[in-house]
Amino acid sequence: GSKKLNIDPYSIMWNRVVDVSDSALRNIIIGLGTKADGRPRQTGYDITVASEIMAILALCSDLKDIRKRLGRIVFGTDKNGKPLTAEDLGVAGAMAVLMREAIMPNLLQTLEHTPAFVHAGPFANIAHGNSSIIADRIALKLADYVVTESGFGADCGMEKFMNIKCRISGLRPNCVVIVASVRALKMHGGGPRVVPGRPLDPAYQQEDLQLLEKGLPNLIQHIENARLFGVPVVVAVNKFTTDTPGEIEMIKDAAVKAGAEGAFTSEVWAKGGAGGAELAEAIVAACEKPTNFQFLYPDDWTIKQKIEAIATKIYRADGVDYDAEAERKIKLFTDMGLGHLPICMAKTHLSFTHDPAIKGAPRGWRLPVRDVRASVGAGFLYPLCGAIRTMPGLPTRPAFVDVDIDLETGRVIGLF
Amino acid sequence: GSKKLNIDPYSIMWNRVVDVSDSALRNIIIGLGTKADGRPRQTGYDITVASEIMAILALCSDLKDIRKRLGRIVFGTDKNGKPLTAEDLGVAGAMAVLMREAIMPNLLQTLEHTPAFVHAGPFANIAHGNSSIIADRIALKLADYVVTESGFGADCGMEKFMNIKCRISGLRPNCVVIVASVRALKMHGGGPRVVPGRPLDPAYQQEDLQLLEKGLPNLIQHIENARLFGVPVVVAVNKFTTDTPGEIEMIKDAAVKAGAEGAFTSEVWAKGGAGGAELAEAIVAACEKPTNFQFLYPDDWTIKQKIEAIATKIYRADGVDYDAEAERKIKLFTDMGLGHLPICMAKTHLSFTHDPAIKGAPRGWRLPVRDVRASVGAGFLYPLCGAIRTMPGLPTRPAFVDVDIDLETGRVIGLF
Amino acid sequence: GSKKLNIDPYSIMWNRVVDVSDSALRNIIIGLGTKADGRPRQTGYDITVASEIMAILALCSDLKDIRKRLGRIVFGTDKNGKPLTAEDLGVAGAMAVLMREAIMPNLLQTLEHTPAFVHAGPFANIAHGNSSIIADRIALKLADYVVTESGFGADCGMEKFMNIKCRISGLRPNCVVIVASVRALKMHGGGPRVVPGRPLDPAYQQEDLQLLEKGLPNLIQHIENARLFGVPVVVAVNKFTTDTPGEIEMIKDAAVKAGAEGAFTSEVWAKGGAGGAELAEAIVAACEKPTNFQFLYPDDWTIKQKIEAIATKIYRADGVDYDAEAERKIKLFTDMGLGHLPICMAKTHLSFTHDPAIKGAPRGWRLPVRDVRASVGAGFLYPLCGAIRTMPGLPTRPAFVDVDIDLETGRVIGLF
Amino acid sequence: GSKKLNIDPYSIMWNRVVDVSDSALRNIIIGLGTKADGRPRQTGYDITVASEIMAILALCSDLKDIRKRLGRIVFGTDKNGKPLTAEDLGVAGAMAVLMREAIMPNLLQTLEHTPAFVHAGPFANIAHGNSSIIADRIALKLADYVVTESGFGADCGMEKFMNIKCRISGLRPNCVVIVASVRALKMHGGGPRVVPGRPLDPAYQQEDLQLLEKGLPNLIQHIENARLFGVPVVVAVNKFTTDTPGEIEMIKDAAVKAGAEGAFTSEVWAKGGAGGAELAEAIVAACEKPTNFQFLYPDDWTIKQKIEAIATKIYRADGVDYDAEAERKIKLFTDMGLGHLPICMAKTHLSFTHDPAIKGAPRGWRLPVRDVRASVGAGFLYPLCGAIRTMPGLPTRPAFVDVDIDLETGRVIGLF
Repeated sequence: GSKKLNIDPYSIMWNRVVDVSDSALRNIIIGLGTKADGRPRQTGYDITVASEIMAILALCSDLKDIRKRLGRIVFGTDKNGKPLTAEDLGVAGAMAVLMREAIMPNLLQTLEHTPAFVHAGPFANIAHGNSSIIADRIALKLADYVVTESGFGADCGMEKFMNIKCRISGLRPNCVVIVASVRALKMHGGGPRVVPGRPLDPAYQQEDLQLLEKGLPNLIQHIENARLFGVPVVVAVNKFTTDTPGEIEMIKDAAVKAGAEGAFTSEVWAKGGAGGAELAEAIVAACEKPTNFQFLYPDDWTIKQKIEAIATKIYRADGVDYDAEAERKIKLFTDMGLGHLPICMAKTHLSFTHDPAIKGAPRGWRLPVRDVRASVGAGFLYPLCGAIRTMPGLPTRPAFVDVDIDLETGRVIGLF
Repeated sequence: GSKKLNIDPYSIMWNRVVDVSDSALRNIIIGLGTKADGRPRQTGYDITVASEIMAILALCSDLKDIRKRLGRIVFGTDKNGKPLTAEDLGVAGAMAVLMREAIMPNLLQTLEHTPAFVHAGPFANIAHGNSSIIADRIALKLADYVVTESGFGADCGMEKFMNIKCRISGLRPNCVVIVASVRALKMHGGGPRVVPGRPLDPAYQQEDLQLLEKGLPNLIQHIENARLFGVPVVVAVNKFTTDTPGEIEMIKDAAVKAGAEGAFTSEVWAKGGAGGAELAEAIVAACEKPTNFQFLYPDDWTIKQKIEAIATKIYRADGVDYDAEAERKIKLFTDMGLGHLPICMAKTHLSFTHDPAIKGAPRGWRLPVRDVRASVGAGFLYPLCGAIRTMPGLPTRPAFVDVDIDLETGRVIGLF
Repeated sequence: GSKKLNIDPYSIMWNRVVDVSDSALRNIIIGLGTKADGRPRQTGYDITVASEIMAILALCSDLKDIRKRLGRIVFGTDKNGKPLTAEDLGVAGAMAVLMREAIMPNLLQTLEHTPAFVHAGPFANIAHGNSSIIADRIALKLADYVVTESGFGADCGMEKFMNIKCRISGLRPNCVVIVASVRALKMHGGGPRVVPGRPLDPAYQQEDLQLLEKGLPNLIQHIENARLFGVPVVVAVNKFTTDTPGEIEMIKDAAVKAGAEGAFTSEVWAKGGAGGAELAEAIVAACEKPTNFQFLYPDDWTIKQKIEAIATKIYRADGVDYDAEAERKIKLFTDMGLGHLPICMAKTHLSFTHDPAIKGAPRGWRLPVRDVRASVGAGFLYPLCGAIRTMPGLPTRPAFVDVDIDLETGRVIGLF
Repeated sequence: GSKKLNIDPYSIMWNRVVDVSDSALRNIIIGLGTKADGRPRQTGYDITVASEIMAILALCSDLKDIRKRLGRIVFGTDKNGKPLTAEDLGVAGAMAVLMREAIMPNLLQTLEHTPAFVHAGPFANIAHGNSSIIADRIALKLADYVVTESGFGADCGMEKFMNIKCRISGLRPNCVVIVASVRALKMHGGGPRVVPGRPLDPAYQQEDLQLLEKGLPNLIQHIENARLFGVPVVVAVNKFTTDTPGEIEMIKDAAVKAGAEGAFTSEVWAKGGAGGAELAEAIVAACEKPTNFQFLYPDDWTIKQKIEAIATKIYRADGVDYDAEAERKIKLFTDMGLGHLPICMAKTHLSFTHDPAIKGAPRGWRLPVRDVRASVGAGFLYPLCGAIRTMPGLPTRPAFVDVDIDLETGRVIGLF
């Protein structure tokens, strides 16, 4: 039983998780009541996509590997500071049984019947944000070219793809495709705020080369970041009907100047596969080029060196400030022999910085790290940058209030 | 949004639910932290089988009905004491969408390929404990005889089948089958304690007519209780290899004397359908007899009258003692116009009383009711008797520690 | 240190106390934060007058005795259920030092220069409600007659004077003086509600013999109760200017009929000592009569027998209902060898029952006891009856908002 | 009432206080239970000496002034961010009444019958750490020379005397006396750790000029700091019998070189007033010298400028790092118009830095500020530096376990 483990209740690093945005569960006290109801303890819930189990699912290679990783999870320490694992707790076997069928990827198809795996859901802001290694491996056996998505901004998903997923899988990319749009770049250039549900500002719907130009440094930083890993870069411009040839041209010029192979429009949303043919050809060509893949940091750097490498080279911060709790954890994890693990930054994807409101390609700022946690089973440490939360909140008007069932037809309404 | 409802946070009757036995969640404080994290409030978790949604699933008749019942759920009141529903909160439509496919029963088969519906999981101690009305209705269209299970002791499942499920569905049973065993009756007669994992005491494995006789009043009370509803009763004796003819005979005599049509052994576990042929014939014969179905109480009795009818006539308590909180709720629900609802007693199934340690057919005791809750969508009120909990605990050695995966074969081990 | 005591945190019976009505401290969780901040625990505050230390102050006989009683305080048990004392905790000596000067009574004087001791403040509803034994003993050395006050209703203060204070001090009263008023008896007869700050209803300011008569059973019950202890009873009628001779006469008749020596008006509030001369003479006469003092219950009755003796003979309840927590504590205290202690009922003083709204001399009701606590140092057990609280609340408009300092004169204003 | 103030519960800056070291009260949740028990809220207790009321007592000039300051206390804001005061809450008058007699200083005497005021108790680490202004003013009327103590290290008490107390009182010092000892300077030089209750290391009891020399920079920094305020400095060396002439001489040389008027031994502890005659003469002489008093910062600097002036000029930090909460509060107080207030650093007195373990005169470090609070009534803002706590903890073996009463003599034992 758990008593013999002599668990230090203050050392517990695992939260419960739930798959709804229940912000009232972020900070809770459990175990109130009588002796039979546990012991009182401050804890909280994370959202399921931030669970270490989700990361393990996406990073494991097979059943044996997930069993091993689940057993390796460190949930806390005993009162002498010795790390305690899921194996110590006797739950790793049961966890593996629950995950036994989950590790098999789901094969779906597009409207044009192209096969696609949809497998694993770690968000790229609060987790490592990539599709599963197992799905990629199966895909590589089945197809000549495999496109795998790394979520959110390339400072989030792509950086973690390179430094975490490639490190664990041993696989190497032949090409990076960065998706951009005129609208998004205008927003990074300082365009009016975009609010869901409100009509889009005209600035985004008519040519505004000056605004677009102000936003280009954001794209350029992403291209430069991708080039750091020694892989060719192609930019895909997700074309809207209101984009003008002048705007597209401006993006293309900037992309090439920043080191990309080129920038190509995609109209897949309107024309299906045909709408991406030119882009696809360019990607195929880029994949022929030699690569010189390299990680941003080696395993044997200190935790702080790794964090600061990402902060300064990818985000372009001047440096990193650590809260006392972060300092304490870095020391703890180093002492626990976890210093060799790669880093999975938990940071907003809405900015290169920790502050979602700061757009473009900011310089002259410092990254605050308020805490660091360890996912030993998944195989990384994750610093919490700024106010990033592992349990999101709902918008003021949650989407569920619009959802209902049409009782005449039995159909669901209000989802879109 | 929820702000305009002017919710009284102290009135909230709904707990969150989770489908594991997590006793540390029984009493919690949520909403700690900053203003963005909700507001601090004492609450708790129930286990999923105790959720009103589970009861609604089992008691609804179709999609329209579940939509209506979900909307009718009362989760609390506003600051003026006006009941607030899931409809008021704007979540009933989304809830119905989530349940849309769940209302369709699962059709399984026995080892002999007899079809069986397995649908809905309310436990009979902390909920109403019966298979779904929809599954029963489909079964009645498909077969000549439908056997539907009501869970746990007949003081729990059967009483609720009669007074709640039949009241809502309009269906009426032709016969009650009470399952008994020599071993269980010996235990009710005061036999040695049975502990899972330890060898069974010899008292249960050799003839002991004296011990069995002491346990018979328990069976007799169940038979008498079933007869109260005006339906013929057949006793099925689940036969073990160590049961002796003398023991079986003693049960048969007592059953008939108490008003049952007869008692018949079942060896279905060993012989399949053939092992229950005589029992089945007896049930078919009983179903031919005229019935005089009646509820234990009419809708228009007060809440206390109904609770006391069940307590004194089914459990055979001398009376009921209400804690202050129970008194407050009875008044509240009466004022809210919910007095007409049937009663779903939350009580241990291990005794006719509220104390799981008291076996046999006890007399001269009073039933303590510590709280009453309302499931307006499901359509009943549920008093909490004694120390019954809506979130169970784990045994000292949880079963999950034995569960693992055989990495050579990929098979699950340790489940049984 | 406290670690070696192996304290069971769930056994702790002592709350912190504070001498303001801070209702938000009734139920709190302490010890949150880091390991250095204690361990999380549910607890609460009582008001100082409900502290066991206040009771000990009032019941001790000298410095040695208070040192011994403080050491004897049981604050909880260890994890094996062994009672733990303040002596075990190593704090009894320091507590005695803090109380060393407090045990010396304060000698004050009335406006007519009569000496009076004002010493110790346990309230008679939530504690034993009597002036200190030390003050009484000093007074008995100094004067021929000593009047000692027992607070609130005679069902509270007098019963505890007899059964607790006399039992501990060995002193015996020669006479009981019950203070009554026409107005209070009219209120007990069902007169209009009296609200502080609003003008008094005319019913209380003009003769209303019918209303008064309805209230007399309250006085009669108090007289009969005092007679149970074998001591002569004198009734003092606190006379208001609006009381009529007919009303006074009606009280006198009823008092004598109920067994009192007589009833005498007191106008001390207006005329000083002269206004109570006749009453004083009557008390002196009563003190000459022989007494047959007896306790309501002997030490060796069970806890429940003692509680029920007070409930049925003094309050005139039909019986007592115990909540589960009260049952648990009665068993615990009996097992701990505390069954011999006298009982100090915590009950509202505004009614013979536990419900402050029920006036007069009610019959046909049962007393609910929701918890029992032990003051082993003081030397009694105290059941909590109904909703009595050991931390009161403030009125909607607290008195402190009227209090200020006159900055010209430096005088305090708004106290009265 | 308080309802109409529309208080934002998350804005409340005032903790309850208690005058014992009860670390389990540092972080608590109050208001649990029913609606009548308040509303649940996270809060905590400070120790009384950290209370704003203690600071007000020490900084006020008379009854009118304390009434005004108490009314000006800001305890939080309403939901629109408007500051709310004790006056708004209607409690300032009652608070003034409670403090009415407390503002009158206590006149004590030394063993040689020299009069001394002992008045007000704010600690110099967590409050402003000075004797009351009223006591100083009375003393100045009564004597030719007034010595007033500012507590703890001169980086704490003296800095606050100059920047806060002098600013509020308008009084100016003629001379600063810094108390030093050979032993303390050796400890600052890296001497063995001094633990209460264990024998003193020989290093402190025999001549060790090398060790002493290493500790001198600490004294020099204090002297330089005092000189910053434009006042002559005299060093008093508290002489122990084991101090050698060589050690004393070394201190004297360093003091003069650092800008002090001189350094003089004090043997008052052994010889009474005569033991300090030479020192007193030197102080009298110093008081004759002209002063050029100046504050470290003017009122109109920003909050950060003031904090950084103290951090860099007095503590000699390289700079200040602010936690997010500190940043938020600095913005809030600036917006509330409190930017003009002086700063009262809450910082350990055991080091020039925020870390009590770092001795001597450290350079090359940064001061972390984790929070800032406002004492608007007292008239200052107080940043919390590092891990400083406003509720201390007890030592592992609290002193109270040794305290008891000698029952034969009635005397207190174990206090010393």
